[in-house]
Amino acid sequence: MRLNLSDTIIALSTPSGEGAIGVIRLSGPKSIEIVDTFFKGKNLTQVDGNTVHYGKIVDDADTIIDECLATVFTAPRSYTKEDIIELSCHGSSYIIQKIIELFLSQGVRLATPGEFTLRAFLNGQLDLTQAEGVADLISAKSASQHELAMNQLRGGVSRMIGGLREKLIKFASLIELENDFSEEDVEFADRGKLKELVQDILKVIIELQSSFQYGNAVKEGVPVAIIGAPNVGKSTLLNALLNEERAIVSEIAGTTRDVIEDQIQIGGILFRFIDTAGLRETSDKIESIGIIKAKEQLVKAKILLYVTEISEDHHQIASKFNSIELRENQKPLILLNKSDEKNSCNAYDIEEAVSTLTGHTPTLAISAKTNIAIEDLKTKLITFIKDDKSELPDTILSNSRHFESLHQTSSSLENVIVGLDSGVPSDLIAMDIRHALHYLGEISGEISTDDLLDSIFRDFCIGK
Amino acid sequence: MRLNLSDTIIALSTPSGEGAIGVIRLSGPKSIEIVDTFFKGKNLTQVDGNTVHYGKIVDDADTIIDECLATVFTAPRSYTKEDIIELSCHGSSYIIQKIIELFLSQGVRLATPGEFTLRAFLNGQLDLTQAEGVADLISAKSASQHELAMNQLRGGVSRMIGGLREKLIKFASLIELENDFSEEDVEFADRGKLKELVQDILKVIIELQSSFQYGNAVKEGVPVAIIGAPNVGKSTLLNALLNEERAIVSEIAGTTRDVIEDQIQIGGILFRFIDTAGLRETSDKIESIGIIKAKEQLVKAKILLYVTEISEDHHQIASKFNSIELRENQKPLILLNKSDEKNSCNAYDIEEAVSTLTGHTPTLAISAKTNIAIEDLKTKLITFIKDDKSELPDTILSNSRHFESLHQTSSSLENVIVGLDSGVPSDLIAMDIRHALHYLGEISGEISTDDLLDSIFRDFCIGK
Repeated sequence: MRLNLSDTIIALSTPSGEGAIGVIRLSGPKSIEIVDTFFKGKNLTQVDGNTVHYGKIVDDADTIIDECLATVFTAPRSYTKEDIIELSCHGSSYIIQKIIELFLSQGVRLATPGEFTLRAFLNGQLDLTQAEGVADLISAKSASQHELAMNQLRGGVSRMIGGLREKLIKFASLIELENDFSEEDVEFADRGKLKELVQDILKVIIELQSSFQYGNAVKEGVPVAIIGAPNVGKSTLLNALLNEERAIVSEIAGTTRDVIEDQIQIGGILFRFIDTAGLRETSDKIESIGIIKAKEQLVKAKILLYVTEISEDHHQIASKFNSIELRENQKPLILLNKSDEKNSCNAYDIEEAVSTLTGHTPTLAISAKTNIAIEDLKTKLITFIKDDKSELPDTILSNSRHFESLHQTSSSLENVIVGLDSGVPSDLIAMDIRHALHYLGEISGEISTDDLLDSIFRDFCIGK
Repeated sequence: MRLNLSDTIIALSTPSGEGAIGVIRLSGPKSIEIVDTFFKGKNLTQVDGNTVHYGKIVDDADTIIDECLATVFTAPRSYTKEDIIELSCHGSSYIIQKIIELFLSQGVRLATPGEFTLRAFLNGQLDLTQAEGVADLISAKSASQHELAMNQLRGGVSRMIGGLREKLIKFASLIELENDFSEEDVEFADRGKLKELVQDILKVIIELQSSFQYGNAVKEGVPVAIIGAPNVGKSTLLNALLNEERAIVSEIAGTTRDVIEDQIQIGGILFRFIDTAGLRETSDKIESIGIIKAKEQLVKAKILLYVTEISEDHHQIASKFNSIELRENQKPLILLNKSDEKNSCNAYDIEEAVSTLTGHTPTLAISAKTNIAIEDLKTKLITFIKDDKSELPDTILSNSRHFESLHQTSSSLENVIVGLDSGVPSDLIAMDIRHALHYLGEISGEISTDDLLDSIFRDFCIGK
């Protein structure tokens, strides 16, 4: 469904619920005029942009709905580049509903999710990757998620893609020029140099693509599976990891809505621990959908913590571990738990022995119960992720839509190289280049369809 | 604990959770300076009050925490009459926590609940009844709650109390003058006229007090008990009442946090239906705490809906109803349910008969299942409350603290009248007047103690 973008729209932009303040936002050509009709205070149609005015919202029946502050932004100096009014009113659901109803009765319509940002995009305030950065920023829960989203919002990805597009367009113009003179069978561009250029672009794309695994892990959280035999201390380990990190969140009341049971931020990265307790308990029963899902999760785990007891024979530990089928890119860490029951010299020897027997798999003696080496474990978890990062470019891809488009771009560019190598006519090469440009353009939104926009903005919050 | 009111304070003023916008508010002498230190954009210490500025919050490590809008209010043109900055940032818990932490590290402290409004009170922006009006306004869920709270916020109660205080102070000054000349045994004031004045004041106080029952019912919601034998259709009735009203709320997504199962707004008044189903079921069992509480609730019900079946013999209905012990001020309504199973002529006759047999208790034939006369029932429910209102003064008391203080005031004034009648020396009369003035002064806050302020503001939301 195509939205009418000349409408004036309204939404509650702050989270719903009782609070000191609720902010209602209107954007569109009539926003200032309509609010002014019900605003007793300064004439809002006469004030400067970026100014705040105290007044009362009074309905047709002369009932004061609220005393509030109206902030006026005049086009194009606003988020959407349209006229915007933000009404900062008392954070009461009743008042907010009444005010919204009042304006709806004047032909304003409710904004769809993300429609303010959609308008900002359509009016050239942001490109698509930046718009997506806005949504990522709002849902960021860790320092590294925040860093990725902020970089994206501030145009990091756009600049990267923009740079590639510029090079490609230059390339395309040379090829297209040849096409214009195709009957004359000229070659304006040195095929060897063209190939070099495309290869350069491809190199950057491949670098970007390779950053996606890290970027996506950070964006979605890093899945960690804790596996091992019953009673080796898996739950105790999870608690040891979880306990400490809780306090930070609860210091500032009211800032965090819900703490999800088994997610921890370590060194700014969100780790999602997958509970595999259920897996072993039901090994003899018919597999329920729940178990299938848990196994799917296990397969997705980027890090595998294999928990065992340090008192177990180390050959046995190694042989059991070696029988585990690791997925590609899955990083294992062997944890020798209950090390408080051994003296530390022995612990070190066993670490060494197990690591050697398992092809130098990282191995750590810990005690989940008495907190021995839990800090080392955390450091190790971070290293697993950060080590990846050191090989990555400054701009990191975290959005699977971008990844998919880049993948299409590189396929087209590989066709270009094949074409150049095999002396394919320039008009065919030009077609592949146009494809590559199309897919690159989708990323930042130079090329967009209603469907694409719908799928991007429908997951935004209302009011953004 | 006495708060240091020269501190600069900070709080999230919008509800917590993810949203498009979160507003962080700072108030106090250093608020502008401290925010400016981390704000990349205009120099906020140089800008005019009531202006909005786009910029970035950047921490010590040069990390951009957010892009946000800073609204500057300079003292005394602000809610607290202090310098205030409101930061409108992306509604992410992570960002909000980071920004608050950043400022906390600069010696700003977290605001206590209602501390912004407490400062507004202490700096003379609002009196106490108005401050209480703010809290009532935020929690208002119905039109009539909203009306009461708005009137209180806009000084309705203050003006009423202020008027009484002025009269009393005039009176007191006359009496005190006599005391100054007490050795000369003069009477400056005509005792008869003095008594008249006090009686006038008492009359107004009694009017105000009599409005409290309505005001409090509106503020807390009107408790309605639905009682009757099993299977007469109590639950169906509740559903019939609830169903229609739901749609309004859900039209505007995101404005209402939680719909409480058995509260309905009818004609702008909130009715709280008390589920008494549990009462009969467990009549033979040991009474649990839950049941005791339910019974307490039943006693508090202002309206009693006695549900019975229209097919039952009307003498029997009347006799069962007459055996119910009604509390003072409890209004009963007899509902003859399942009237769809009778023809309507009969229904009317039975209504009449039952009403007559029960001393003209209002009686209504309804069908909860087929929605017959449910609208009439609603009208009736409103009349029960609105009829009360027609006898009430313009200013309605809804706050039990005000009611309590008024009660103390009128006791003291009654002592004054007794004193005047029995020729008690003027210094004793003056003492009673001072008491009366003290209690009146507590209402609007001319007289306040730390304990009183603590007890008022601790129930405020943080950030208000």
